Amino acid sequence: MTKTNSNNKSASSPIQGKQTVKFHNPPAIVSRASIVGQMEGEGPLSSFYDQIEADPTFGMNSWEEGESEMVRRAVQTAISKSGLTKEDIRYLVGGDLLGQLIGTTFGVKSFNIPVIGLYGACSTCGEGLSLAAMLVAAGYADNIVAVTSSHYGSAEKQFRFPLEYGNQRPLSATWTVTGSGAFVVSSTNNKNAMNCYPRITSTTIGKIVDYGVTDNMNMGAIMAPAAADVIYQCLDDLSMKPDQFDKIITGDLGKVGSQILIKLLRDNGVDISNQHMDCGVEIFDCEKQDTHSGGSGCGCCAVTLAGYILTNMDNGTWKRILFVPTGALLSTVSYNEGQTIPGIAHALVIEH
Amino acid sequence: MTKTNSNNKSASSPIQGKQTVKFHNPPAIVSRASIVGQMEGEGPLSSFYDQIEADPTFGMNSWEEGESEMVRRAVQTAISKSGLTKEDIRYLVGGDLLGQLIGTTFGVKSFNIPVIGLYGACSTCGEGLSLAAMLVAAGYADNIVAVTSSHYGSAEKQFRFPLEYGNQRPLSATWTVTGSGAFVVSSTNNKNAMNCYPRITSTTIGKIVDYGVTDNMNMGAIMAPAAADVIYQCLDDLSMKPDQFDKIITGDLGKVGSQILIKLLRDNGVDISNQHMDCGVEIFDCEKQDTHSGGSGCGCCAVTLAGYILTNMDNGTWKRILFVPTGALLSTVSYNEGQTIPGIAHALVIEH
Repeated sequence: MTKTNSNNKSASSPIQGKQTVKFHNPPAIVSRASIVGQMEGEGPLSSFYDQIEADPTFGMNSWEEGESEMVRRAVQTAISKSGLTKEDIRYLVGGDLLGQLIGTTFGVKSFNIPVIGLYGACSTCGEGLSLAAMLVAAGYADNIVAVTSSHYGSAEKQFRFPLEYGNQRPLSATWTVTGSGAFVVSSTNNKNAMNCYPRITSTTIGKIVDYGVTDNMNMGAIMAPAAADVIYQCLDDLSMKPDQFDKIITGDLGKVGSQILIKLLRDNGVDISNQHMDCGVEIFDCEKQDTHSGGSGCGCCAVTLAGYILTNMDNGTWKRILFVPTGALLSTVSYNEGQTIPGIAHALVIEH
Repeated sequence: MTKTNSNNKSASSPIQGKQTVKFHNPPAIVSRASIVGQMEGEGPLSSFYDQIEADPTFGMNSWEEGESEMVRRAVQTAISKSGLTKEDIRYLVGGDLLGQLIGTTFGVKSFNIPVIGLYGACSTCGEGLSLAAMLVAAGYADNIVAVTSSHYGSAEKQFRFPLEYGNQRPLSATWTVTGSGAFVVSSTNNKNAMNCYPRITSTTIGKIVDYGVTDNMNMGAIMAPAAADVIYQCLDDLSMKPDQFDKIITGDLGKVGSQILIKLLRDNGVDISNQHMDCGVEIFDCEKQDTHSGGSGCGCCAVTLAGYILTNMDNGTWKRILFVPTGALLSTVSYNEGQTIPGIAHALVIEH
């Protein structure tokens, strides 16, 4: 066993502080794709998506099969846009909200790429990009695809009420995004050409944070403490301040969760109010589209990163962001047995 | 994007062949723990477990809470046996069979360690140990805990029939093991003392393999093709033969799946019949304990590795093994919608 103070590493170590890894050769996001449903396509970010599909089953027989088809298209599009073939992709890391990851499994199996299946609820995009960057930077692969998805129909069916029931939703509720985002993460060793791509320069893996919330219609309140925890730790590990980022972007806290996040961090002496943006707030016009607190789901921050966010980095509007996908570890079984709903979030620094 | 032939790497690269990573400084399994239920404790491997618990809820209120308590005890025991504290563990990687990984989530949250949640069905032990080894060998952490679990009650409830229904099970069916195995994987850089521990010297991440099987009472037939695929690829990537291993150990194929595996590999010119062993066959006395084809579940190979297998490596009986946890990506939703059940497996070389 190795007993060391991780805060006290040599300059050559990628370990930074308690939870962060900083890459010497930061992997690049050389390609990405976003496939979304009709409602997302009618939202304010519609011009940034690769495909908008009007059919909620994506031409298949069920919402679940539709989600898999959406994943398949996202992976296929991201690989095609990279100029690579599927044989060049060494691993695929990904997951979704559905039990046993059926969205991902049936979406990616035809590619014949070794698969690392992940579950981090709506934080999965951050978990997948973190692992992809870690594995690429370590020299275990030249190219890895990270993918995640969510689907309004399949998620509501699994977690809440039959859609036909038409239950009323409180204003704290969010709307699960129908969308899949895929990213090709590639090695940058000794390649100047990689300067034209956004790079993942560090990642901070988050803890499970449980404030005892049991309201499954207020996921923002569940996830905000986990987001606050990982943002605070990331800034501390990297000895950075919020104003060193152009944006600090959370996954799907929505309006309610975003307010809690800002207050929690302010109570701990960190003010991110000038930099903070939430993908769940941006993805829908909450008033016109009746989505209450905003969008949510693994796909929410994945398609927003693949589209709106990285486009703003490509065109130089933002040079350095902190990207923080947030997840509520909701299960109907544990929830119905009276357990709390814990949260988790991971934080990646992306620079261009 | 980086277009390279992965088979044609320099000597310093950890990449071996198409799917394998070989470590220059192989991480050590410095500590492990196995916590099991009563029936496993009555099986032939009973003397190798750390704890045998007679209460199926492990003193809690439900099978699910019991599974989490089992996970908590496994992680706590593994950390304690290593001489480390939880503050020395940089990441925890793990997962289980339950939707949204509630076995793991509620079992590990009190440790306050950053969590990477995995889903690979019963292959999760291989996925977790692979990632732990990859992250440690890359210098991202000195110590990582990999944990996985399964519970007969919670798994039957989720995937099959109410236990009270007392359904008859075909002879191809396996019995989900109630057990949790946890492992502390540590860096071995420049430490001769590490020679006293088993080391993970390579890992081969597997593909999703789907032979179109739809019988959820014959998981062995689902997983055997995935096991054959990854074993074949691992041997090819490392240019090794079966007789270079003392044992080639699959996760939970059971008797039926083991026969299929040996035939599939023999059809491809590889004979592992002299080396093959299956944790699902070993863990129960299938005749006396009425477990039909054998044991299964994430916990099956995890507790067998932590107990019986690594003890046989500690005492020099086996010097090099190929450990191949196998998973059937079964979901009641996709299954009831008429989909097939794909398989996946990962292969680790462990040497002592």
